[in-house]
Amino acid sequence: MKGTILSINPNSILVDITHNVAKFDIQNGAFILSSATPYFPKGTIHIAVVDPGVGTKRRAIVIQTKKGYFIGPDNGLLILAAEHQGILRIHQLTNPKFMLSGVSSTFHGRDVFAPAAAYIEKGTKPEKFGPEIHEPVRPEFSKIKHTKDGITCRVLHIDSFGNIITNLSKTEATKLPENLNIKIQKNELKIKLKKTYGETKPNEAMALIGSHGFLEIALNRGNAAEKFQAKNGNEVTITPT
Amino acid sequence: MKGTILSINPNSILVDITHNVAKFDIQNGAFILSSATPYFPKGTIHIAVVDPGVGTKRRAIVIQTKKGYFIGPDNGLLILAAEHQGILRIHQLTNPKFMLSGVSSTFHGRDVFAPAAAYIEKGTKPEKFGPEIHEPVRPEFSKIKHTKDGITCRVLHIDSFGNIITNLSKTEATKLPENLNIKIQKNELKIKLKKTYGETKPNEAMALIGSHGFLEIALNRGNAAEKFQAKNGNEVTITPT
Amino acid sequence: MKGTILSINPNSILVDITHNVAKFDIQNGAFILSSATPYFPKGTIHIAVVDPGVGTKRRAIVIQTKKGYFIGPDNGLLILAAEHQGILRIHQLTNPKFMLSGVSSTFHGRDVFAPAAAYIEKGTKPEKFGPEIHEPVRPEFSKIKHTKDGITCRVLHIDSFGNIITNLSKTEATKLPENLNIKIQKNELKIKLKKTYGETKPNEAMALIGSHGFLEIALNRGNAAEKFQAKNGNEVTITPT
Repeated sequence: MKGTILSINPNSILVDITHNVAKFDIQNGAFILSSATPYFPKGTIHIAVVDPGVGTKRRAIVIQTKKGYFIGPDNGLLILAAEHQGILRIHQLTNPKFMLSGVSSTFHGRDVFAPAAAYIEKGTKPEKFGPEIHEPVRPEFSKIKHTKDGITCRVLHIDSFGNIITNLSKTEATKLPENLNIKIQKNELKIKLKKTYGETKPNEAMALIGSHGFLEIALNRGNAAEKFQAKNGNEVTITPT
Repeated sequence: MKGTILSINPNSILVDITHNVAKFDIQNGAFILSSATPYFPKGTIHIAVVDPGVGTKRRAIVIQTKKGYFIGPDNGLLILAAEHQGILRIHQLTNPKFMLSGVSSTFHGRDVFAPAAAYIEKGTKPEKFGPEIHEPVRPEFSKIKHTKDGITCRVLHIDSFGNIITNLSKTEATKLPENLNIKIQKNELKIKLKKTYGETKPNEAMALIGSHGFLEIALNRGNAAEKFQAKNGNEVTITPT
Repeated sequence: MKGTILSINPNSILVDITHNVAKFDIQNGAFILSSATPYFPKGTIHIAVVDPGVGTKRRAIVIQTKKGYFIGPDNGLLILAAEHQGILRIHQLTNPKFMLSGVSSTFHGRDVFAPAAAYIEKGTKPEKFGPEIHEPVRPEFSKIKHTKDGITCRVLHIDSFGNIITNLSKTEATKLPENLNIKIQKNELKIKLKKTYGETKPNEAMALIGSHGFLEIALNRGNAAEKFQAKNGNEVTITPT
């Protein structure tokens, strides 16, 4: 992929975020992408790929946002990070003019996504790559639901300390009041929305906006995921109290 | 190695391909290098190293090809990728003027290969580094043999889906007819050379030129390596039918 | 961290050394940093982080040396590499002007260290970041002691061949005579200081200055760590004979 990009645009600045997303794990890839992208400069073009399942069909897309571009598969990997920036339009990558010739069926990253990024960087407009699409794939982990009582969101990630990271973005989370009722599975707790970990007693549950930009539920010096028996993808119901 | 290169030539653009080749695994290193190098721009200088065995002696070399340069040990790691590009000449790296002073016996990558790459980039000609050599080490996995009946090549790599990647390059493979008899170990099958995976029925064996640029034997949605009981390094006999 | 740096200074050249230091392993991080930094150009700004223990407090610092800068936690990670270059001054990073706004309690690398590096590169002087400090944390593994009989240093690292790498730098080690008595734990051997591995017989113990720039104790084709029953952090007593 890097060779392809530099062959088209030798002045590209290439930055690796991670090569450690597990095969097929779209949710984890989306979480890492969303955590990293807010810190990159305006105009950055983000490419992301996760190994697809065997025989999987999916569209290749470019998303133009208010801050930059996302290029990759239309399988939900990009949508969470792109929505944080504000989506302007989404186009499919179908124009063979902007692909490596002799595209193999197995390495879209190198043959479709990488050239698209290099051409975008050189000034090619999204509409040149293919038709606009309006219904990108939105996996469960990217959805939040406003109800009359509060918000239902999802467990996006559980970190190595057992902190529960939800898919509720900073923008939404800052609208919440200080006193919250959190329910995951059958476990329910009244907790407070704090600014930092330091503000609670050991073993006290709390919510805060984590360093990744999402609402996080933590147990000071303890394991929140164990306490709530929370797993990736679980629904999280948040009700102001 | 990166520090050494930037100390000599601060304008270098450095690109990592992989740091995950297993110790001593020259064949795997050669496969990855051959897969990646076709996609880099003309003039690219490729450096490759695998950990040598303890006490191993080997020459350090620079290979100039029609498209660029390869720098590394003369143990077969470079030869497959370099031959794809067309080898022009090979020189040994023996001139201490182009090495870090105080070269240790253990880290040729940093002290010999990296400075050579930086000096090549700055315009130093291969003949300045040391004597020309004409018989580089050619391991079994880099050899193919034309017989009166067909071609004998080798299993270069088996991927995580069980696809068998041979060392037969695209240039050779495109000369093959559609109907082939493939024999690996004692197992023999009549198969067709196709353009993509999609053109066969599930569990049908097929050959195609894979995304890495080599002839690949695959079982649509199945494991070809199991079917042929194929292992790395096995002979593959290909006969037109 | 890379995004933060490029947002402040788009012309930065970013080089990864490693992402494989184990959590909390300050000694291993310090060894790798010390091994790599001598090969980078004058003026290089080195950033290093290891995951801290939960709830750990530590100062963030910038060290200006005769050759460049080190930025990271004041936990001993930087001190060995910085002392090799000659420390000029150390300042704390406390000025919020040079941090990302909304600094979380969990990711100092991105929010404090990375911006500091970018601002240093743009010409900001160390004294702008915070007060000068004179007593940085010096862990045991960074200390050497001159006694009237010789030198007491430490096992800094044991490599995959069982070679014992001490924390005694090249500068100190080159002052040693050829004949040495080495004592680690209760095991004592008379050995010679050599220039390369090649100069000894198989299974003969020897000392040399390794490719990392530290005094190393090796057993030609054998395992020195086993012979001495040496472990990371052990005292090494070196006496000229």
